[in-house]
Amino acid sequence: MRILFYAPTGKPDPWLAGLRAQLPAAEIEAWQPGAPPADAAVLWSPPQQLFDEQPQLKAVFNLGAGMDALLKLQLPKDALLVRLEDAGMAVQMAEYVCHYLVRHVREFDQLENRWVFRKPLDRAEFPVGVMGLGQLGSRVAQAVLQFDFPVVGWSRTPRDLPGVKTFAGEAGLPEFLSQTRVLVCLLPLTPDTRDILNRDTLGRLKPGGYLINVARGAHLVEEDLLALLDSGHMAGAALDVFRTEPLPAGHPFWNHPKVTVTPHISGRTLREESIRQIAGKIRALERGEPVAGVVERERGY
Amino acid sequence: MRILFYAPTGKPDPWLAGLRAQLPAAEIEAWQPGAPPADAAVLWSPPQQLFDEQPQLKAVFNLGAGMDALLKLQLPKDALLVRLEDAGMAVQMAEYVCHYLVRHVREFDQLENRWVFRKPLDRAEFPVGVMGLGQLGSRVAQAVLQFDFPVVGWSRTPRDLPGVKTFAGEAGLPEFLSQTRVLVCLLPLTPDTRDILNRDTLGRLKPGGYLINVARGAHLVEEDLLALLDSGHMAGAALDVFRTEPLPAGHPFWNHPKVTVTPHISGRTLREESIRQIAGKIRALERGEPVAGVVERERGY
Repeated sequence: MRILFYAPTGKPDPWLAGLRAQLPAAEIEAWQPGAPPADAAVLWSPPQQLFDEQPQLKAVFNLGAGMDALLKLQLPKDALLVRLEDAGMAVQMAEYVCHYLVRHVREFDQLENRWVFRKPLDRAEFPVGVMGLGQLGSRVAQAVLQFDFPVVGWSRTPRDLPGVKTFAGEAGLPEFLSQTRVLVCLLPLTPDTRDILNRDTLGRLKPGGYLINVARGAHLVEEDLLALLDSGHMAGAALDVFRTEPLPAGHPFWNHPKVTVTPHISGRTLREESIRQIAGKIRALERGEPVAGVVERERGY
Repeated sequence: MRILFYAPTGKPDPWLAGLRAQLPAAEIEAWQPGAPPADAAVLWSPPQQLFDEQPQLKAVFNLGAGMDALLKLQLPKDALLVRLEDAGMAVQMAEYVCHYLVRHVREFDQLENRWVFRKPLDRAEFPVGVMGLGQLGSRVAQAVLQFDFPVVGWSRTPRDLPGVKTFAGEAGLPEFLSQTRVLVCLLPLTPDTRDILNRDTLGRLKPGGYLINVARGAHLVEEDLLALLDSGHMAGAALDVFRTEPLPAGHPFWNHPKVTVTPHISGRTLREESIRQIAGKIRALERGEPVAGVVERERGY
């Protein structure tokens, strides 16, 4: 079996070494234009040229959970598309969400490095709404529950999560939003979810709403959030993803008093976990076994 | 039954109303000098005069988990001393500890509001050591475990906690410290634990140690922490409690680049939870039943 590796940033060598150690029988190389045909590819943000040159690929492993960037390309028709599942990302997401949730509700940013008194807020008044209840969303919901916040959840198709009141589909969205004060977006980016965080949906949140977006920048209509922050309906936001990344200098989110910007670090791909997971799936496919994380192209994730 | 209430700050009325609603048969009053003898008292930081005038008190309920301030006074010899147990404090402590742990390990303070790349740190390299494994410590340990950090624990007497490697007593302290990088202090303040965070003990932490003190200021020898921060052995601290509170203007912790100061807000007494708990214990004592949270005066908690 021949496997290609490509990632636009970072050194390929530790990835190649890790994959070779896990799959000693395979021939594993960094992709370069004109590389001989391979069976599988392990990729992050590849150029279209890679797929144009390698139409015979049987499996494409994405080095991330979000498939939106890859699905914009013309992909080999019959290749199995496999996304990264968790691989150390879910716990990072749970940390990020809990951190900014707690920071907001406990008002730590206003209590640090000064001696002031503030009346404790009641966590019952900060129900957390999690959009997207897959592996990442359910781990986040579980972490938030542990801090005794009320949690509601929303997903495309109905899901049951212990301790979480769940809603599904377009019909369930208004009710979910009206029960949410801190909204956490963990959705995949698809045609259905693009722009889903807008003036109408965010306007349905409880007064004093707070947005934590750790999914994709294109979920959010940025000017709608700004308008709701200005009107006072929303109290703030912690944003890790943006329509344009890096977030351009001069963008109103920079230095906005109610917005915390982080540079797309809420859930980073961890090399060792990713290599172990992908190598495991390659071995399973070689044995003819099914693997998890296979992407449905029409659905978009 | 006659019950006195005293707290030096805040309005007594909502406390009196809450206690009266829970204990309609009792006579409940805010203490004033010369008040008629009572059976029980619900107190925070009372003056010695209260106990001098009320030697007949049969039960004293402390509006906090820490007994150190109360035990400095001359107390009615036969009064049962009862501390507040959890009452909404444990979850607050868990939030505080996880927040500053995650903020440090994920380097959020360095990633906020700029677009920079930092290599993710490995959580396995940040074992968290929890000192004090009672109701607060065990809740904190459980919350930290959920974010996949290795957790060790230390307590005066041996304790078992699922997922936590525990050590006990003076003999177990050096080994506990040597396995810890992020040290969380949740100990009661007693003669044995005063000054327990000092140059010797903090010097045994793994390099790059971080201290989270949510217990009492007198646990920490402040100049020893400053010396270890200056030497680089310790990387930082989040401190909620201080030897003198409010932390005096001009104290080196203010504006220290490696220290975050918070104004003793990690676990605040919540009125409704506290009233419910204390009223429940008063009813149990009236029925002749034992109650939890009774303080051993010699032990100090």
